[in-house]
Amino acid sequence: MQNFSYKNPTEILFGKGMIAELATRVPRKTPVLLLYGGGSILRNGVHEQVKAALCQHRVIEFGGIEANPLLETCLQAVAVVKKAKIQFILAVGGGSVLDAAKFIAAAALFKGRDPWAILETHGANVTAALPVGTVLTLPATGSESNGNAVISRAATQEKLHFTSALVFPVFSVLDPTTTYSLPKKFVRNGLVDAFVHTMEQYLTFPAAAPLQDRFSEAVLQTLVEVAPVTLAKPRNYDARASFMWSATLALNTQLGCGVPQDWATHMIGHELTAFYGLDHAETLAIVMPGVWKYKLEAKRAKLEQYGRRVWGVKTAAAACAKTEQFFHAIGMPTRLGDYKINAAEAAAKVAERFAARGDAFGEHGDIDAKAAAAILRDRK
Amino acid sequence: MQNFSYKNPTEILFGKGMIAELATRVPRKTPVLLLYGGGSILRNGVHEQVKAALCQHRVIEFGGIEANPLLETCLQAVAVVKKAKIQFILAVGGGSVLDAAKFIAAAALFKGRDPWAILETHGANVTAALPVGTVLTLPATGSESNGNAVISRAATQEKLHFTSALVFPVFSVLDPTTTYSLPKKFVRNGLVDAFVHTMEQYLTFPAAAPLQDRFSEAVLQTLVEVAPVTLAKPRNYDARASFMWSATLALNTQLGCGVPQDWATHMIGHELTAFYGLDHAETLAIVMPGVWKYKLEAKRAKLEQYGRRVWGVKTAAAACAKTEQFFHAIGMPTRLGDYKINAAEAAAKVAERFAARGDAFGEHGDIDAKAAAAILRDRK
Repeated sequence: MQNFSYKNPTEILFGKGMIAELATRVPRKTPVLLLYGGGSILRNGVHEQVKAALCQHRVIEFGGIEANPLLETCLQAVAVVKKAKIQFILAVGGGSVLDAAKFIAAAALFKGRDPWAILETHGANVTAALPVGTVLTLPATGSESNGNAVISRAATQEKLHFTSALVFPVFSVLDPTTTYSLPKKFVRNGLVDAFVHTMEQYLTFPAAAPLQDRFSEAVLQTLVEVAPVTLAKPRNYDARASFMWSATLALNTQLGCGVPQDWATHMIGHELTAFYGLDHAETLAIVMPGVWKYKLEAKRAKLEQYGRRVWGVKTAAAACAKTEQFFHAIGMPTRLGDYKINAAEAAAKVAERFAARGDAFGEHGDIDAKAAAAILRDRK
Repeated sequence: MQNFSYKNPTEILFGKGMIAELATRVPRKTPVLLLYGGGSILRNGVHEQVKAALCQHRVIEFGGIEANPLLETCLQAVAVVKKAKIQFILAVGGGSVLDAAKFIAAAALFKGRDPWAILETHGANVTAALPVGTVLTLPATGSESNGNAVISRAATQEKLHFTSALVFPVFSVLDPTTTYSLPKKFVRNGLVDAFVHTMEQYLTFPAAAPLQDRFSEAVLQTLVEVAPVTLAKPRNYDARASFMWSATLALNTQLGCGVPQDWATHMIGHELTAFYGLDHAETLAIVMPGVWKYKLEAKRAKLEQYGRRVWGVKTAAAACAKTEQFFHAIGMPTRLGDYKINAAEAAAKVAERFAARGDAFGEHGDIDAKAAAAILRDRK
């Protein structure tokens, strides 16, 4: 096992009716920014529950955070925060709203000239952030219990991430009933997102970390088990609860303790979203099988273990096939061609960007521009 | 899944050489109490490493914390803390030293007359505590990453526990190499302790929590796998590291999120330690098979799942048998008779105490005096 340090201070408030806990968890002394997205929370009753819990608080609302939240929108919220002297941000929504809240929390106290520098340094220059609390309405990103955020800049078609211990949510409310009204596509995306988050911390090479391996396999097995149930029966509480808890534990950073990590799929995927506007999970389902095929020898031992333990198959090839079949079974395409995207063109565009930044990812640090291009050309 | 709230703010610093991190993690402004036990850390090089890391700190040492730490000893340490205006306690040792540190941290700021009241209220009256950091040298109790402590009072042969969010360690250093010199008996005890901690949160009744079940099974499988290796080869780093990390995750309170919990084995076991001086783990290995047999029907579904997934056997009876065989294989007796303790007498003594306090434990709250007596009579 590799050395590691691990700390996750987020309080999880899990279950039916837990939104009421906001009344005591959100500080009352100063105004609160209530941040949300496209307005689904106005239609599904969540906004009403949140407002009821905060009836003793001064609340300033800011809606309209996009999927793949934009720097440009976040900066408008930062201006509101500064003007109203807001000291607490409550994000209500999915990973995009939560990520935006983290960025706004850091940008509001950022000393530099241009907050985009937070993304360019991947968070290294974050020295303070307002406290953030969340009410999660879309299980997927794990943002509710980690210090990560991904922000896009429309002006330059860039999508970058930052990480800081200062932006872990103080608390996150996870009420599975808030997800009952999610469109099927969002649920499918969330399942794939959580699945691939687990894989980025698991599907590398053996590192004498049997407990972490089994924890990752536990998340994968549970997602495979609940996926068809929660897609077919959105109001099945138990399936939705297991999906929600699995997505949180997939990326609360515990699975990655002491083991090598990959993340090449995410980094290539971010570029596909930036260039073509694909959903984050859609890019992951395209790229991951390509990364596995490209690194088949280096990943063979773990692919075989995964295949054996999660799918009951014997070979690495069968494990890869089972994974794509699983994605297809829940309605997730796995090829660029499924979106009418020219693979050769996508490969060239992503490679150019990797080359310009000198990027290289993967557990061996060898997924560079050339590798990314080869992977994408093969996903036509 | 049941509703739950979960928060674990302890920072884990895991791996070879991590004791050096104390230099920056322990605050320097005020004197530090360095708490330890019988002095093994003076012989195995850990004390030297700790002192080297704290060469810039003012350190006041307090050794001599017993296995099953005594109130009487802890109160001497509280006097030292108050006199020297100590603001940080560094516990170096196993669960006993860590538990003592937590109690001392709470007792030093306790407003009531008699700090034993902290135990009598199981922590409900703890309103403040000094910060505690730990260097763990014995994987077993999980005390390095939870808010629990167990303290004994010699004067009355009592052993009680308390829990408070205020006594979670700020950080815990887990360096597997510090455990290389442990006597085999301590390793055996730690393996059983971690195993039974997991069981108390798992072996109840199905609660539609498939991910928690699999996480618990992951810990059980890993302990079963590494136990013979780490007993035979104490200096095998990977096995010792997996054992250490398993013991921490067995009781960092995450496994118990959203599921029923038992703890009857622990509560009966504490009485056996209080009356007969058995090691904590020795009591658990005696009592747990008895609790399972007594509640066989209520626990059958989970026993069968456990048997199937961890041991590859089909029946509840076979799962029980495999568990006792595992304990025996690592040198752990499972009967009162193995210690020449009269089962009928032990049953009567424990039952009297349960009856006097009106205690009842277990996931159904029905392990009362009568049940405890029946369980113990059967463990002759």
